[in-house]
Amino acid sequence: MLEKNLRKLLKRLAVGEISLEQAMARLKDFSVEDLGVAQVDHHRGLRQGFAEVIYCAGKTEKEVETIARAILKKNPALLATRATAGIFARLRKLDKTARFHERSGAITIEREKSLRAGNVLVVSAGTSDLPVAEEAAVTADIMGSKVDVLHDVGVAGIHRLLHHVDKLAEARVIVVTAGMDGALASVVGGLVSRPVIAVPTSVGYGASFGGVSALLAMLNSCAAGVAVMNIDNGFGAGALAHKINTLPESLAK
Amino acid sequence: MLEKNLRKLLKRLAVGEISLEQAMARLKDFSVEDLGVAQVDHHRGLRQGFAEVIYCAGKTEKEVETIARAILKKNPALLATRATAGIFARLRKLDKTARFHERSGAITIEREKSLRAGNVLVVSAGTSDLPVAEEAAVTADIMGSKVDVLHDVGVAGIHRLLHHVDKLAEARVIVVTAGMDGALASVVGGLVSRPVIAVPTSVGYGASFGGVSALLAMLNSCAAGVAVMNIDNGFGAGALAHKINTLPESLAK
Amino acid sequence: MLEKNLRKLLKRLAVGEISLEQAMARLKDFSVEDLGVAQVDHHRGLRQGFAEVIYCAGKTEKEVETIARAILKKNPALLATRATAGIFARLRKLDKTARFHERSGAITIEREKSLRAGNVLVVSAGTSDLPVAEEAAVTADIMGSKVDVLHDVGVAGIHRLLHHVDKLAEARVIVVTAGMDGALASVVGGLVSRPVIAVPTSVGYGASFGGVSALLAMLNSCAAGVAVMNIDNGFGAGALAHKINTLPESLAK
Amino acid sequence: MLEKNLRKLLKRLAVGEISLEQAMARLKDFSVEDLGVAQVDHHRGLRQGFAEVIYCAGKTEKEVETIARAILKKNPALLATRATAGIFARLRKLDKTARFHERSGAITIEREKSLRAGNVLVVSAGTSDLPVAEEAAVTADIMGSKVDVLHDVGVAGIHRLLHHVDKLAEARVIVVTAGMDGALASVVGGLVSRPVIAVPTSVGYGASFGGVSALLAMLNSCAAGVAVMNIDNGFGAGALAHKINTLPESLAK
Amino acid sequence: MLEKNLRKLLKRLAVGEISLEQAMARLKDFSVEDLGVAQVDHHRGLRQGFAEVIYCAGKTEKEVETIARAILKKNPALLATRATAGIFARLRKLDKTARFHERSGAITIEREKSLRAGNVLVVSAGTSDLPVAEEAAVTADIMGSKVDVLHDVGVAGIHRLLHHVDKLAEARVIVVTAGMDGALASVVGGLVSRPVIAVPTSVGYGASFGGVSALLAMLNSCAAGVAVMNIDNGFGAGALAHKINTLPESLAK
Amino acid sequence: MLEKNLRKLLKRLAVGEISLEQAMARLKDFSVEDLGVAQVDHHRGLRQGFAEVIYCAGKTEKEVETIARAILKKNPALLATRATAGIFARLRKLDKTARFHERSGAITIEREKSLRAGNVLVVSAGTSDLPVAEEAAVTADIMGSKVDVLHDVGVAGIHRLLHHVDKLAEARVIVVTAGMDGALASVVGGLVSRPVIAVPTSVGYGASFGGVSALLAMLNSCAAGVAVMNIDNGFGAGALAHKINTLPESLAK
Amino acid sequence: MLEKNLRKLLKRLAVGEISLEQAMARLKDFSVEDLGVAQVDHHRGLRQGFAEVIYCAGKTEKEVETIARAILKKNPALLATRATAGIFARLRKLDKTARFHERSGAITIEREKSLRAGNVLVVSAGTSDLPVAEEAAVTADIMGSKVDVLHDVGVAGIHRLLHHVDKLAEARVIVVTAGMDGALASVVGGLVSRPVIAVPTSVGYGASFGGVSALLAMLNSCAAGVAVMNIDNGFGAGALAHKINTLPESLAK
Amino acid sequence: MLEKNLRKLLKRLAVGEISLEQAMARLKDFSVEDLGVAQVDHHRGLRQGFAEVIYCAGKTEKEVETIARAILKKNPALLATRATAGIFARLRKLDKTARFHERSGAITIEREKSLRAGNVLVVSAGTSDLPVAEEAAVTADIMGSKVDVLHDVGVAGIHRLLHHVDKLAEARVIVVTAGMDGALASVVGGLVSRPVIAVPTSVGYGASFGGVSALLAMLNSCAAGVAVMNIDNGFGAGALAHKINTLPESLAK
Repeated sequence: MLEKNLRKLLKRLAVGEISLEQAMARLKDFSVEDLGVAQVDHHRGLRQGFAEVIYCAGKTEKEVETIARAILKKNPALLATRATAGIFARLRKLDKTARFHERSGAITIEREKSLRAGNVLVVSAGTSDLPVAEEAAVTADIMGSKVDVLHDVGVAGIHRLLHHVDKLAEARVIVVTAGMDGALASVVGGLVSRPVIAVPTSVGYGASFGGVSALLAMLNSCAAGVAVMNIDNGFGAGALAHKINTLPESLAK
Repeated sequence: MLEKNLRKLLKRLAVGEISLEQAMARLKDFSVEDLGVAQVDHHRGLRQGFAEVIYCAGKTEKEVETIARAILKKNPALLATRATAGIFARLRKLDKTARFHERSGAITIEREKSLRAGNVLVVSAGTSDLPVAEEAAVTADIMGSKVDVLHDVGVAGIHRLLHHVDKLAEARVIVVTAGMDGALASVVGGLVSRPVIAVPTSVGYGASFGGVSALLAMLNSCAAGVAVMNIDNGFGAGALAHKINTLPESLAK
Repeated sequence: MLEKNLRKLLKRLAVGEISLEQAMARLKDFSVEDLGVAQVDHHRGLRQGFAEVIYCAGKTEKEVETIARAILKKNPALLATRATAGIFARLRKLDKTARFHERSGAITIEREKSLRAGNVLVVSAGTSDLPVAEEAAVTADIMGSKVDVLHDVGVAGIHRLLHHVDKLAEARVIVVTAGMDGALASVVGGLVSRPVIAVPTSVGYGASFGGVSALLAMLNSCAAGVAVMNIDNGFGAGALAHKINTLPESLAK
Repeated sequence: MLEKNLRKLLKRLAVGEISLEQAMARLKDFSVEDLGVAQVDHHRGLRQGFAEVIYCAGKTEKEVETIARAILKKNPALLATRATAGIFARLRKLDKTARFHERSGAITIEREKSLRAGNVLVVSAGTSDLPVAEEAAVTADIMGSKVDVLHDVGVAGIHRLLHHVDKLAEARVIVVTAGMDGALASVVGGLVSRPVIAVPTSVGYGASFGGVSALLAMLNSCAAGVAVMNIDNGFGAGALAHKINTLPESLAK
Repeated sequence: MLEKNLRKLLKRLAVGEISLEQAMARLKDFSVEDLGVAQVDHHRGLRQGFAEVIYCAGKTEKEVETIARAILKKNPALLATRATAGIFARLRKLDKTARFHERSGAITIEREKSLRAGNVLVVSAGTSDLPVAEEAAVTADIMGSKVDVLHDVGVAGIHRLLHHVDKLAEARVIVVTAGMDGALASVVGGLVSRPVIAVPTSVGYGASFGGVSALLAMLNSCAAGVAVMNIDNGFGAGALAHKINTLPESLAK
Repeated sequence: MLEKNLRKLLKRLAVGEISLEQAMARLKDFSVEDLGVAQVDHHRGLRQGFAEVIYCAGKTEKEVETIARAILKKNPALLATRATAGIFARLRKLDKTARFHERSGAITIEREKSLRAGNVLVVSAGTSDLPVAEEAAVTADIMGSKVDVLHDVGVAGIHRLLHHVDKLAEARVIVVTAGMDGALASVVGGLVSRPVIAVPTSVGYGASFGGVSALLAMLNSCAAGVAVMNIDNGFGAGALAHKINTLPESLAK
Repeated sequence: MLEKNLRKLLKRLAVGEISLEQAMARLKDFSVEDLGVAQVDHHRGLRQGFAEVIYCAGKTEKEVETIARAILKKNPALLATRATAGIFARLRKLDKTARFHERSGAITIEREKSLRAGNVLVVSAGTSDLPVAEEAAVTADIMGSKVDVLHDVGVAGIHRLLHHVDKLAEARVIVVTAGMDGALASVVGGLVSRPVIAVPTSVGYGASFGGVSALLAMLNSCAAGVAVMNIDNGFGAGALAHKINTLPESLAK
Repeated sequence: MLEKNLRKLLKRLAVGEISLEQAMARLKDFSVEDLGVAQVDHHRGLRQGFAEVIYCAGKTEKEVETIARAILKKNPALLATRATAGIFARLRKLDKTARFHERSGAITIEREKSLRAGNVLVVSAGTSDLPVAEEAAVTADIMGSKVDVLHDVGVAGIHRLLHHVDKLAEARVIVVTAGMDGALASVVGGLVSRPVIAVPTSVGYGASFGGVSALLAMLNSCAAGVAVMNIDNGFGAGALAHKINTLPESLAK
């Protein structure tokens, strides 16, 4: 693609269709856009056909509103994470479809309801893990994935999980959120053959060290195929689950 | 599926096709095989149509040989990781197609060459990361994925990576292996929209703390969609990359 | 008991049965033996009617032999942990009943076969955890507990564990040894109502940090009633399991 | 038991006592209840004949009240940990027997005073360890164990502890709570032959690192038979102590 | 210089120009000022012709004002870091040229605008790193360096950085502030040949551990020539950048 | 420069001096060489007019020889770090000027003796720090800096350092290598006004944790203007010192 | 002494001066008081002829008042550490000589001014270390040591310390309080031959990790004769300094 | 002293007794020798009238021999720590009084037997702690202190320690060496009123982390008056104990 475009540009210059100055200006952009690094010219959140995501922590209500207004000018949907009720009040005024997901603090705006594809399952160990699980679910959903959830199925009562093996088996990608011993990721990873994204949560006290116990346990999962996100990073897990879930089918050559 | 099978079994008992004892025996298996937890009745490595993988570290040459012999009775292919030349000598005798991948210590046996599907790209930052990169590549390959590699493209000379943006863009899943600052994972994650599996390596000295510096950097990658494996876990990354790469296309839309 | 003995001694002095000097000498011992701290006058390992245990690491073969000889003069049984084949060769000469448990390096001598009581179950996640599991089993056994084992039932194939729920249910105390994610302790703790002693093992690599990942996971087990030992401390777990297993029934109700 | 029940069910189907649909429904429950994993069908806290325990941290007053109301419908007793005065005010209204243990924040409700069995001793090093010690004592007590306490007997004044060797000797299980150097666990473990459950507390400052100093010291206790709980986990220690204390006597076979 | 002064003093004594007592008094000062350790007789901040810098954290508004008043008596410029609006209000009254740099909390006073030399570039990865970046920039500027900035060019969108390679190439010294994965330092270090001072910031959550992830990544930068400051130490980076930027040209001997 | 070259190229195409294909080929290189990221097209070590540096650890003797041969074809000088006597024997054969610096394991080859500029001072705390100090000194020297050393002047005998304040005062850049308490960096930083590069060494035992004690102390140096390298990274310190030492004088004022 | 008392008691029993019951009662006390562990029968703070010290953190104002009242009944002096203005107000009412040392929060009461002996010097690196330094000084003073102080002599301006070598040389024991790089302890330890007690303070930010950087640096001090206290433990340092300072002269036998 | 010497020198110049050049030369030395920092002009080990101590780790046999030869020229005694049998063989030839203390690897030479003063007691918890205990004892002894030892009195059998309270009570300074839980330091600190120097040892495994568990426990000792040395630093403890033990009696009262 890059080569084709470049060739076209140079041809137009060679045949005099464009001036030297015009070619110069165009080539300058090329260096960051078309010359092989084209994809980086999109803001982080724009990937997958989705607009930039607003990480609200550390931003003023006004700053978030300004950014949101800019995004909504060009996009039909918006995701803001770690937001507050105050921020929601402002975004609500921008668009009536705004929804506040209170546990995680995520705000979504979706002007035209789009279809959801595939099957992402978000599993959580206990009720304290819900904020992180919700952030993952809301993220994958607004980006375009069909999302199902399975809550409070921690290994201390493993039958609760076993009751839902069908749900586990049907999922294309599974996000597991768990704090403390993080054991749920290993158990789920041992039950299914699909990719598992483990998110340690900071739930716990004492020697959980703010999520480190779950993080280490998950990194050392004896089940193959478990990858790990940063502590409490529900957004990242949701975004990755969506990427995996919506991979176009491979054409085995 | 479970329900259908169960119903059939009970019907056969109800109509006298099978005896009570036969039903008993069958139901006992059900509890772990068909009653909803069927998939766990397969050994860890059997997932994805691939036989159990032999982790050789801590096993004697003889033990590995015995296990390999058993696997080869039922499977056309075999993967043994962290093996030695001594182990290879023994497996070579079992099957002439045995190959020893020296950097990583992986041994593969593939009696009937099967097709490879999709497109997994394994990227490494420096030559010292090659053992881990090779383990990932060999794993995904023997499991059935088409694998490409891109070596020695660490960020200290970022142009080397930018030269290969095409390769990056074409991959369905990318495994990034890097030690020390682990920065390559973030840069690759920022350049592509596909799932990135980051594997920190224990390469480095001093404050790299055996891979902890790269591990933390990768967990904190500012690029969305980067998931992390345990330090030096090339096998896990390869297995997960293969799982993602060969996900059947999602139908439910 | 203390008071009774003391009273008797003083009576004997008061009625002139013993001299002042004799009372003096006896009372000096009392201060550390009978005056309420009597039990500490026995060497660490002598508890529970069992002789001192020899921790061989860092001792010469000769030193171990000397200590063993002294113990065997007064005791019908002996336990030496972390021993070598060289040490075993020496102890073998001291007593023909000496047995070497190779995985753990434990040596036991039992001149008169005594009865075993109760029911201690030692569970291990993988074959690499066997040395620690064996140390726990051998310890509880030689001290007088009936010991059963359940090996290679890690959560990555949870059906293997579920196949043995009967064994789990019958045990009075369960010792769980597991490295890496240590998840087995939580799963077992969630399946049974009996005391569970979790022993993290140093099995693993990378971010397992020599057993820290399993240690933290076990300390944060969401199952109530799981207590944790030091990494690789099979001996301690076996000794504690024996103590719990042989607690006399509580009478005061 | 499982087998017996299963056989009975199948027989009834075989002889037409129940319909296929009835058998189906029953077998579905079996998979999680009767097919060998029966015990996991009880909520975590229901073990030992005791109802679910409410961990109040992170729950609203209203949520706690709702859960408590549900529990009290089916149970004569209730335990809520890490509660507040506000929560207590609500639970007080549910039942007049509600008691608030202020140091630990535990609330107990016991409608019919039940007997207490055995002998659990809870020892604390200093007055700052009392909240954790109280949580342990209240837990074991409400679950049905006879509990005694011994406070402020830290090793900096070891005579205070030695004064109470009788109490130590009489206990069936001992819970030791200590922060800072955690030395009390080792000293108690050296004085008694009964199981010792050590609970590190977050008491201290500087290099106590929120309880890590005591945790490590306790894990490395040179006294055999000391097991360790998570930092500040008085509840877990109390529950485990109760489990050990009320083990039915072993019938040495 | 020292020697010259000393010689002069002694000559004056030898020829009777000054009394013994006068020489004594002068020599006493010499011991710390002129006898070879002269440079240490200046307060920390006085280096480079710049007055002492006030670190406001932990000082009362009044204390800062008092110190500032003293400094301004002898100096034309002043720098106060980690200040508050309250402190600024007071310093504003001392001098109308006082400026409050709100993000970093730095206050500068510059009575006579002096020239700026050289070329220090301060680069930041994200908007959350701005407080630290500003502290570095303000520090180098008030000390006398010409400072340029480049904000929000983190590696997750590497084209943003590549757009500014000219700025990078022109700088004499570059300060890079980044949190989370700290990858920007390595990438910049790989693009330029000039000294790079990396400042990890405490931006991030979870396994960023308050800046540790960025700190370790920067210490392990695979680009040669990257030195690291303490987490969030923008002042130190600015001061060091100024020192390097204004080194007099080396006269190759 | 980039712009000028680009303009020239396009002009030549526009006027038909070069063909479309020739322009295409040239522009492809531009993307990584001239389009603004030109400097990255040089290997890491080529900076400052110096050839790539060979890090020998983990490379075979033969591999090092091959790389060295390649470098020497295009460069008059060569630096190999962490080398062995065996490697030296090989390189010796390549060039008679090869020198082996035994403490650090550095090998230098300098076919034409070039001039040394400026003044880099390498200071070490104790004799155990010499390997790291030597690596720093050899690196800065071979790259072209005039290097002086000051050894065994640790703060436990601070007069030894004070004896050499002249040397300290004359240096343009100072590299301080110290293990254990790392205090020398702070003391030197407090004595001079020039840039100080601190290199923690892994010298020490116990709570020095392989250099962590010195690393943390140096990062927290209360002297402004101290930047820190990775533990034992003498090469990095030498390279950075050389960069700073040979900065061309700033002109823009 | 113990033996003498014991002998006397037994004699009185033997000759009938006391009854068996009286001897029993007396001997019970002996076990902890006179039988060789007599000294431990005094509360922690009573050592050295000084009453128990009240650690106020975590105690209510009323609790402190009650304890203080009890102490003052039997002692002429009192020390309360980590107190508040509220506590001071109460203690002030108990005794007019009460003094509040605001920086450290220490309160002293000294009804009869006693003499001070020896020479303890408390040195601090910066003004932020003053609270800890003050706690050390107040503690040693109220216990009976003559205390001198030397403030703000951190190594970043080492001449300030060198100005006071006389003071350092005259001290019998030196307490050094420093945060951040903790270098002052090593420098002082290198200048004097007397015992140095180093107290790391939690002063600093970022990689000082709440005092860990100073703690590690001090533990690794290359000056022999430096011992270390817990972070911020000024009280412990003062108490130990007093113990050393007032050791009776050794009688060389 | 300084002042007096200075005055004398200047007088001699003033009256012409010495030339200007002579005064210059003398004053130069003054700056580091007589001007108040005189004591630092002695090598580290020369303090207390004892010669420099040779730390052999990392030195060749020949290097140690050379240094020893130099020391013995000026000193009647010598201490070399962490030495080997090979080094001993060489030193033996230098002086027949050389003694090798095998456990700790310390070598002492004492040509003229000097008197020992005071009373230092070195206590160790277990036999594995003996190397560190021996290093402390040998150090204090050769420096001139009377040293007594008490071995294998760890808290797991606390009666062993209580048997020796007399020894504890008689000591002027006590060095406690212990690994694992380090509890012995707290217990000893609670039994005596004299200074206690705690040395954590690297004895242990698993979560002892090479001595960290004991180090943290000792730093958090609840007994006042316990100071801590680096892990395994027996030499430092012995040297400090000697300093404290031989403090001249304080006169100023």
